[in-house]
Amino acid sequence: MCITHGVMIYNTDMRADHINGTMFLYRQIAEKISGMITEGTYRPNERIPSIRSLSRQLRVSVNTVMEAYASLENIGLIEARPQSGYYVRYPSPEPKAMLSRKVAMAYVAPNDVILGDASLQIMRTLADPSLVPLGRGAPNTDLLPSDKLNRMLASQSKRFPGQSVSYGSFQGIRKLRVQIARRLLHSGCTVSADDIVITSGCVEAVNLALLATCRSGDTVALGSPIYYTFLNSVQWLGLKVLEIPSVPGEGMSLEVLSYAMKQTPIRACIVIPNFNNPLGTLMPEEKKRELVKLLSKQEIPLIEDDVYSDLAFGPVHPSSAKVHDEKGMVLSCSSFSKTLAPGYRIGWIVPGRFQQKVEQLKALFNIATASPTQLAVAEFLTNGGYDHHLRKIRRVYARQVNQMRDAVISNFPQGTRVSRPEGGFILWVELPEGIDALRVYEEGLKQGIGIAPGVLFTTGNRYQNCFRLNAAFWSDQIAQALETLGEISESMV
Amino acid sequence: MCITHGVMIYNTDMRADHINGTMFLYRQIAEKISGMITEGTYRPNERIPSIRSLSRQLRVSVNTVMEAYASLENIGLIEARPQSGYYVRYPSPEPKAMLSRKVAMAYVAPNDVILGDASLQIMRTLADPSLVPLGRGAPNTDLLPSDKLNRMLASQSKRFPGQSVSYGSFQGIRKLRVQIARRLLHSGCTVSADDIVITSGCVEAVNLALLATCRSGDTVALGSPIYYTFLNSVQWLGLKVLEIPSVPGEGMSLEVLSYAMKQTPIRACIVIPNFNNPLGTLMPEEKKRELVKLLSKQEIPLIEDDVYSDLAFGPVHPSSAKVHDEKGMVLSCSSFSKTLAPGYRIGWIVPGRFQQKVEQLKALFNIATASPTQLAVAEFLTNGGYDHHLRKIRRVYARQVNQMRDAVISNFPQGTRVSRPEGGFILWVELPEGIDALRVYEEGLKQGIGIAPGVLFTTGNRYQNCFRLNAAFWSDQIAQALETLGEISESMV
Repeated sequence: MCITHGVMIYNTDMRADHINGTMFLYRQIAEKISGMITEGTYRPNERIPSIRSLSRQLRVSVNTVMEAYASLENIGLIEARPQSGYYVRYPSPEPKAMLSRKVAMAYVAPNDVILGDASLQIMRTLADPSLVPLGRGAPNTDLLPSDKLNRMLASQSKRFPGQSVSYGSFQGIRKLRVQIARRLLHSGCTVSADDIVITSGCVEAVNLALLATCRSGDTVALGSPIYYTFLNSVQWLGLKVLEIPSVPGEGMSLEVLSYAMKQTPIRACIVIPNFNNPLGTLMPEEKKRELVKLLSKQEIPLIEDDVYSDLAFGPVHPSSAKVHDEKGMVLSCSSFSKTLAPGYRIGWIVPGRFQQKVEQLKALFNIATASPTQLAVAEFLTNGGYDHHLRKIRRVYARQVNQMRDAVISNFPQGTRVSRPEGGFILWVELPEGIDALRVYEEGLKQGIGIAPGVLFTTGNRYQNCFRLNAAFWSDQIAQALETLGEISESMV
Repeated sequence: MCITHGVMIYNTDMRADHINGTMFLYRQIAEKISGMITEGTYRPNERIPSIRSLSRQLRVSVNTVMEAYASLENIGLIEARPQSGYYVRYPSPEPKAMLSRKVAMAYVAPNDVILGDASLQIMRTLADPSLVPLGRGAPNTDLLPSDKLNRMLASQSKRFPGQSVSYGSFQGIRKLRVQIARRLLHSGCTVSADDIVITSGCVEAVNLALLATCRSGDTVALGSPIYYTFLNSVQWLGLKVLEIPSVPGEGMSLEVLSYAMKQTPIRACIVIPNFNNPLGTLMPEEKKRELVKLLSKQEIPLIEDDVYSDLAFGPVHPSSAKVHDEKGMVLSCSSFSKTLAPGYRIGWIVPGRFQQKVEQLKALFNIATASPTQLAVAEFLTNGGYDHHLRKIRRVYARQVNQMRDAVISNFPQGTRVSRPEGGFILWVELPEGIDALRVYEEGLKQGIGIAPGVLFTTGNRYQNCFRLNAAFWSDQIAQALETLGEISESMV
């Protein structure tokens, strides 16, 4: 593996880990073909060069081209057709720019968060396990390494019985922090175990970050649409929300953020830069750098939720915004809830200059995170084959995200748009204007289907024609549920 | 077992669970003898009637008298001397009333909590595992059923692999809540599994209760001295503290509280009624009733921390303040951190009318408590012999608390007072006026000994001659450490 420009690159083929040249090559080829598709050199439904011919043309090995094509397939740009070759897929229209400039500027006023009972009721409903699970953000349990993890849970607690039942330090068990520090190299971060605080999941990490940086009444800027759990936190902590609109392909609009910073004192900013929840957007490297620089200039802390970055479909592990942090102003949060075991509740934060406050807050929040699950995850990261496991689930999620996008395009009314995430398993759907996604949600609920309507993701009256889908699951039942939702939506056109 | 006046009574002898008559009898006898000692009928160092003679006099079985004496021995009132019989122990002087009336009234002004760096540094230091553990409030790991618990952790995660790695509901895993509901009968509470929310320990439960009832700027009344973790919470939540002085044998002064309520709007009140941390006081039944009534009249929520009540030395399991709650205004919090496994982070809250808010807060705090440790504790409560385990550790803690009291009296300067808790393992020591306990702490630290100095337990300049000891541990090293602390204190007289 190798770091370029602060980004760790890995490969779907283990062997290639040791052949840096090859690794770069396949990536270069993938980017070249991807560029030719974007520019229209190859158009939807057209055949691209066969593996053999491209290998001859470029004088690279067949394996290298295969890897390049596999990565393009992963992100849904091309598809293999049996006995025929590789074709450019029909792109489905992506969600529109969230807002025109004029409307965007209208955002720039801090709002108190007052979540209505209706929103709270929807959040509770989404957790109902009897619903078809298109609404909640949980990973697919069948794709988690349950048996191996649970075996490690058993063996570690047997091996360290006293440590297992006792309080660990507030900061968390050291060997887990060591493993996380090593993994953070993938995100381009060089931090030590001492720079990390273990938390009970990523949401707790973000809450600690908010408490460490803000006081009641302060304003927090968040990319909109906003992951609803953060809205909920912000409400309870008595903070005000400044919704910053998102730009397709970039995430939070830095132009609007910069404008907003001049109008309103902002105490902190929350961003989900990699495979954003709910938009799926991957913030480009230079935008991450720009964001950190913009905020640092005014000493505004950036709270980063980086919980999906291990689930990139392509060959590049996205970097953390923390990479660009020169002043210790980025509080980077993540967890193993999307990849290993949400029920283990193991997350972490790299709090930068706020570390002492965060440790103190962790101690007063709940003293420490559970010891047995810390020990088990540390062991899994050491001896469990985490990278191998990631390669497996990334392939599945990449396939399912494409399947679900296709199902949305074919089942929902014409004009429906759906995001094209390059990692994770969250999809954002925009129905044609005028279709009320809240009614789609309500009708779906009657048929036992859960989706997360757009109104959950804002303090205002936005996203009324939008909803979020979870593509972590795929089955006939899910396919059927999408048909049903499509019919419901059609009936509202 | 049997409930009288909302209090569950249990017995150190399992057979007696089934013979209610006998059970009441031994308790009546214990109370009679206890009364005769208090009134001076039997005085320190005097022999009380032999078991045989009392059995003949009262026409009860020898076993019944033995049980009565065992329970009096447990609370340190009498002692058996080999070959000789039972004697009344010398009482060591208990801590004085915290404050005279006049001084007490001076308390009645809400304070912002601003914990100095010194206090925070002490809190961090106390967690240092290399210190002689007299400072931190952790139980003795050797007395925890580590092997059995860890075996259950292994077997349950193997039996329910999917449930183990997945999010449970916000509220917690149902079979654990069922077991807790059953156990709450011991505290006189008849609640159902639906009334309980699982938390990551008792401290988290209290934080959720504070967030559910208060807003930044509100004032919270707490019995003083205050468990320092709560002071820490209150500071970070932007709340003000009203310190209510404590009365020996009663806990928080209801007279002062009642007066304070007329002067200042109080948004919530926190109490540790049973074996208070740090005073050890057991609030009498009628005072609990009075407290709940006083607060309910003005619709002020009462947050109860009841984490020590399973560790009563005497035969009576103290009741929860919740027993007297008619309006759903008591939020009762507890955990298994003192009796089973602090590292498992399993606590709960019975939030009364605030339940929906508390569930929502739990979801936004950290979504849910870790599943594997919930499953293991549920199994332990079902099939692990929790009552048997409690009987065992109560005996040990009762003995050690007495040993440590004796050691304090014999090692520390004349005029030193020490609390006489009837449960738990926390002791409160008052040195003679003028001796600075903070200096004793600092000098102790140089010798590798941790104690919790009184200044941690207040927002003001109180308790400067006081400190808290943890009697969960007893060893030659601990005895030596107490001698050292005694010498340090003597040198300051």
